Amino acid sequence: MNSPKPLALTLGDPAGIGPELALKAWRARAALPAPFFLLADPDALARAAHALGLETPIIVCEPEGAAAAFASALPVVALAAKAEAQPGRSQIGHAPAILESIERAVALTLAGRAHALVTNPIAKATLYDAGFKYPGHTEFLGALSAQAGYAGGAVMMIWCETLAVVPVTVHVPLADVPGLLTQGLIERTARIVDADLRRRFGIHRPRIAVAGLNPHAGEGGAMGREDIDIVMPAIAALRRDGLSIVGPLPADTMFHPKARARYDVALCMYHDQALIPAKTLAFDSAVNVTLGLPFIRTSPDHGTAFDIAGRGIADPSSLIEALKLAARLSP
Amino acid sequence: MNSPKPLALTLGDPAGIGPELALKAWRARAALPAPFFLLADPDALARAAHALGLETPIIVCEPEGAAAAFASALPVVALAAKAEAQPGRSQIGHAPAILESIERAVALTLAGRAHALVTNPIAKATLYDAGFKYPGHTEFLGALSAQAGYAGGAVMMIWCETLAVVPVTVHVPLADVPGLLTQGLIERTARIVDADLRRRFGIHRPRIAVAGLNPHAGEGGAMGREDIDIVMPAIAALRRDGLSIVGPLPADTMFHPKARARYDVALCMYHDQALIPAKTLAFDSAVNVTLGLPFIRTSPDHGTAFDIAGRGIADPSSLIEALKLAARLSP
Repeated sequence: MNSPKPLALTLGDPAGIGPELALKAWRARAALPAPFFLLADPDALARAAHALGLETPIIVCEPEGAAAAFASALPVVALAAKAEAQPGRSQIGHAPAILESIERAVALTLAGRAHALVTNPIAKATLYDAGFKYPGHTEFLGALSAQAGYAGGAVMMIWCETLAVVPVTVHVPLADVPGLLTQGLIERTARIVDADLRRRFGIHRPRIAVAGLNPHAGEGGAMGREDIDIVMPAIAALRRDGLSIVGPLPADTMFHPKARARYDVALCMYHDQALIPAKTLAFDSAVNVTLGLPFIRTSPDHGTAFDIAGRGIADPSSLIEALKLAARLSP
Repeated sequence: MNSPKPLALTLGDPAGIGPELALKAWRARAALPAPFFLLADPDALARAAHALGLETPIIVCEPEGAAAAFASALPVVALAAKAEAQPGRSQIGHAPAILESIERAVALTLAGRAHALVTNPIAKATLYDAGFKYPGHTEFLGALSAQAGYAGGAVMMIWCETLAVVPVTVHVPLADVPGLLTQGLIERTARIVDADLRRRFGIHRPRIAVAGLNPHAGEGGAMGREDIDIVMPAIAALRRDGLSIVGPLPADTMFHPKARARYDVALCMYHDQALIPAKTLAFDSAVNVTLGLPFIRTSPDHGTAFDIAGRGIADPSSLIEALKLAARLSP
């Protein structure tokens, strides 16, 4: 155990695979570099473990008790809200426990009682029905940080051992991407990436490679002007400020092994341009990391998987990678 | 040698790496399942070989002499046009030889004197200066086929041992993709893909997986309507006609090994959606195959590489894969 401080793992949607993943990750604790505690309803968790055939010793404790207990029991910081759930049946009634789990994990991490925050998957549709107003975890965590007095901007990075990618635009229709792409947005995103790769990942001078928006990065304007009019000025401005940044590069030739060796992170213009190479190379082990927050947050790079919840077949690899990465990053 | 008929290999731009690749491919002939002949200026080729330190026995012959000569010399079908070139210096004066090479290779293949056509890379800018009116090889070959009385439509597929992808829209700005995408275009493309995977690749009932245009395939319309309004009706129509076709699938989770095992070809909506996974997985060995023509045509999946021409360091892997695939496909 390198880190004395435990990681805070949120409940996620209790009808999804989150509880199963947490149980399986604790069972794989020999491979983890740091202890974690789960923010959960202990009774509901115990029943879920029984139903899954994953009987697990659970200890209800404060974060400070997690490290000592971790070898022999799964530490649970008990939520006020109940979280009884039928696998696969996400309900509006789960929203209080889901949100309490995230809010308390953020508060504990900001208070220095947890090293970092690792989140289990949530179902946006369920939370929307309960009045949740954020597109997802990333934006919600940004808002909680702002409420706590931290400015900045939350940036999603998908990370695996062989590749890190950041989409500059994320969950928007493809047709909206060219209009949303501005020099300012690219610059803001790159500065957050540069700062957090230095601070959290310990990379002295992060090498950023920027993908062009258009095929062949526009081929000198023959296939779209955005790479010349928007992407190139952003790169020039960032380089003037001392960032190690190249591009726009043709996106299709950026992700083979020799090309990847030339940069630490690829800044991509839209969701699939970033996520296709990451999930092609590391479908089970890719981790979602939020940059720009006043704390570390990682997450498995998959959803609630309601279709397989309760069957005991969920693969904890991505959560385990998320726990490993969170433990390794600098606060 | 499985195939008695030789493959016709075009010159490509003589200032690019094409001549070097042809010489290296012949030197690797023990690995090739069929002989090939190069359409070239024999004198210029001999001088290029000498300059590269790749002295190679060259025999000038007709296509019918290629198979017998192949073990001991590189068979060259001599062009009328001269093709003397300085490495890296593409010139308008090369256009006649480049185009003659393609036109004669097509004619020989259509006449049954060659098994298939394999093309070396061309430089569009050079050909445009000489009055060439096609976006690239694919469209030029479509036009030559039409002139010879064959209707149809040329469709680009990128193929490697582990993945085949077809972009429905190709060399256009990303902003134009949503507007160019129609139900008719998707259907026409899929029908050509289905027909040629049966006929040429010998796949009894090709399994086609269609990528969604938007992130998460639009997530039920929350991120763009095109997947519902355009892609789904095309898939439904194709399925009614008996094609084995599924989608629209979220593009980012389509290309990991387990997902790839479920289909024979991925139909993608735009250039980078198709080319990113193909070149991430098989940068050196991906082959460009044109479907929908009255003959087989393959090509290495890279350009003229003027920056390294004449240095002897060009990697012939992709050309060798193109020669292997062409030999293996049914006429």
